Amino acid sequence: MKLVRLGALNKEKTAVLIDGKYFDVSPFFQDFNEAFFEQDGLKKLADVVNNEILEEVDNPERIGSCVARPSKIICVGLNYADHAKETGAAIPTEPILFFKSTSALSGPFDDVIIPKNSVKTDWEVEFAIVIGKKASYVNEDNAYDYVAGYCLHNDISEREFQLERGGNWSKGKGCDTFAPLGPFLATKDEIQDVHNLNMWLDINGKRFQTSNTKQLIFNVPQIVSYISQFMTLLPGDVISTGTPHGVGLGLNPPVFLKPGDVMTLGMDGLGEQKQMAIAYSA
Amino acid sequence: MKLVRLGALNKEKTAVLIDGKYFDVSPFFQDFNEAFFEQDGLKKLADVVNNEILEEVDNPERIGSCVARPSKIICVGLNYADHAKETGAAIPTEPILFFKSTSALSGPFDDVIIPKNSVKTDWEVEFAIVIGKKASYVNEDNAYDYVAGYCLHNDISEREFQLERGGNWSKGKGCDTFAPLGPFLATKDEIQDVHNLNMWLDINGKRFQTSNTKQLIFNVPQIVSYISQFMTLLPGDVISTGTPHGVGLGLNPPVFLKPGDVMTLGMDGLGEQKQMAIAYSA
Repeated sequence: MKLVRLGALNKEKTAVLIDGKYFDVSPFFQDFNEAFFEQDGLKKLADVVNNEILEEVDNPERIGSCVARPSKIICVGLNYADHAKETGAAIPTEPILFFKSTSALSGPFDDVIIPKNSVKTDWEVEFAIVIGKKASYVNEDNAYDYVAGYCLHNDISEREFQLERGGNWSKGKGCDTFAPLGPFLATKDEIQDVHNLNMWLDINGKRFQTSNTKQLIFNVPQIVSYISQFMTLLPGDVISTGTPHGVGLGLNPPVFLKPGDVMTLGMDGLGEQKQMAIAYSA
Repeated sequence: MKLVRLGALNKEKTAVLIDGKYFDVSPFFQDFNEAFFEQDGLKKLADVVNNEILEEVDNPERIGSCVARPSKIICVGLNYADHAKETGAAIPTEPILFFKSTSALSGPFDDVIIPKNSVKTDWEVEFAIVIGKKASYVNEDNAYDYVAGYCLHNDISEREFQLERGGNWSKGKGCDTFAPLGPFLATKDEIQDVHNLNMWLDINGKRFQTSNTKQLIFNVPQIVSYISQFMTLLPGDVISTGTPHGVGLGLNPPVFLKPGDVMTLGMDGLGEQKQMAIAYSA
């Protein structure tokens, strides 16, 4: 199944995407949030899709993040060898983790706001995992049991805030609108091989990032198991698995977003996103 | 007012603490969460406290975190000069920020779980700010307008996970039970001078940390204003302002928690916490 959330920001309603059409499931499910995944929502949703007559949503005014605000968005840093190289970092011997503020969550076609005083706002196409059930000290062997599905994520990053303003990466990763997620959550059964998905990102129609999840240094079961050694993953939590080479920071000279720039990005089986970068205005 | 949440984990009910007694306000307020603060909950609560006859809660089975799970817990690192020194770090020229996983939230008297494979679990008494309304690009001059109140926080930290396992501090800060918060949220009017509050922490009855918020490098309005330049603070969000010297990592030789150790900590006007460290068990 493909889960979507349609409607104005913070008022999204649940829907499913079937053969390119949106069908409303909001009479049955309030939101795709922690409670939904925890209470066997995916199974209930399959029952609803199979047994109920659903109303088509003709022209959704907006597509929101495909999941509601989770307890946490955890990102894996430098998880593609070629990206580690372009940023001048060593290839990690174990996953590098950082949190992205959940208030950064955004729709896949929403404008991305370049923060006030930002000069280094950058893009990062990423493959994201959505957790389906509580995961603590999980083994790699059964890590997939804890996965609800997958989605596309643009891990927008302000490089000066991230790297030149002291300490951790938080300042450059958590800005508002910096986590466009979706357009849909594809349940596990929709994706034949999570480790063979092409991904790409264009700026103003020009290709900057091209890769495939087969290039991941740490793969999906390794990542889920690894993070669960440090903290409990809750249903609905999002793990973003890292970006491949081709970010603005890695170019010579570096290139960053300016107002009016358009990002388009996509992944096999996970749809496409499109965002315009805009200047912050009060 | 002093806001408390009483009851079993994830089933806490709202209450207020008046003259050492707990009074149930759960018929009026479902939780002390984002919606509560956003919808002028503190003013409504004052009305309820002044005008309604409230039932006393005689023997609360458990005191929970004083606020519900927020969108984010942001911490300021190395915000006391003497603590920066004891860890061998430079005194920061601007606040160091990191996120603590919101799934780490815990009650002030709950056991603290030493994670599996942990050998360096450490304590940190901290003064925490709770945000009252949405704050984006706030000036220092009116930063207090965005503050709901204050509470005590033990920013439990696993030093090996934090500092020796690659990259950001996330792995050592977000473990389950690593954020005991409370026992109560004191509203702004309860605290005469936030920059003159004594704080202390004992392990097994022996004093390890003693300080006062007058030692903060970056003070409350500076911190609120600063963070709001990078991301929107949402109502109910928690900012922990850093710990003074006296953590286990800073001792020579370092000392870390072992099962059975008891932490007691307190701050002027914000009450006391007590936790026992226990080993993880499945």
